[in-house]
Amino acid sequence: MTIYRSPCPIATTLDIVGDRWTLVILRDLLTGKSRYSQFLTSPERITTNVLADRLEKMEAAGLVARSPYQQRPIRNDYRLTEMGRALHPMLRDMCRWANQHIPGTWTPPESFMRE
Amino acid sequence: MTIYRSPCPIATTLDIVGDRWTLVILRDLLTGKSRYSQFLTSPERITTNVLADRLEKMEAAGLVARSPYQQRPIRNDYRLTEMGRALHPMLRDMCRWANQHIPGTWTPPESFMRE
Repeated sequence: MTIYRSPCPIATTLDIVGDRWTLVILRDLLTGKSRYSQFLTSPERITTNVLADRLEKMEAAGLVARSPYQQRPIRNDYRLTEMGRALHPMLRDMCRWANQHIPGTWTPPESFMRE
Repeated sequence: MTIYRSPCPIATTLDIVGDRWTLVILRDLLTGKSRYSQFLTSPERITTNVLADRLEKMEAAGLVARSPYQQRPIRNDYRLTEMGRALHPMLRDMCRWANQHIPGTWTPPESFMRE
């Protein structure tokens, strides 16, 4: 079990997902991506080593589960766990807030914003 | 007007409030604190220079408005703007998620969680 720095629920959530790249990957997983090659095509241009690092941390935190879809060389599929999917409302809130208060922010696809 | 690094609404929100101390101050403002002396008594023991820095940034971002309640020496009251108050649902989501998925996190007061 991972030990977090503070019992404050806000600080703990930030420790787990308060990193830009983690949130980018989380968004991609929520919109249906599951493979390295798919994450690498996102407009933010994540590098393979950052992607590998964040996926490993997300797996350790229990947000993501990995399963091989190919052997030799081994290739993995990454899927959100129930715990990972449960972050969707928070991401929706962040989008709603930014769209309302920060001019020029992207509007997410309707499917992402639907409850 | 502040210019943010990306038009992504999630990245932008994180740029504005994705800092532990900013969220601690935001929580305190949402629960009724408004003065330096009050913020300094929170269990996280923020230092005066970090507090001053974050309040200044929050004011620049439009989350907080300052008004003097005393002259000589000047003392200010800090209040959330409508834009700042609009972050409450996101903080509630973070608490709800952590309480549900991370054992041992604090349960916020009911008044904070009420919609």
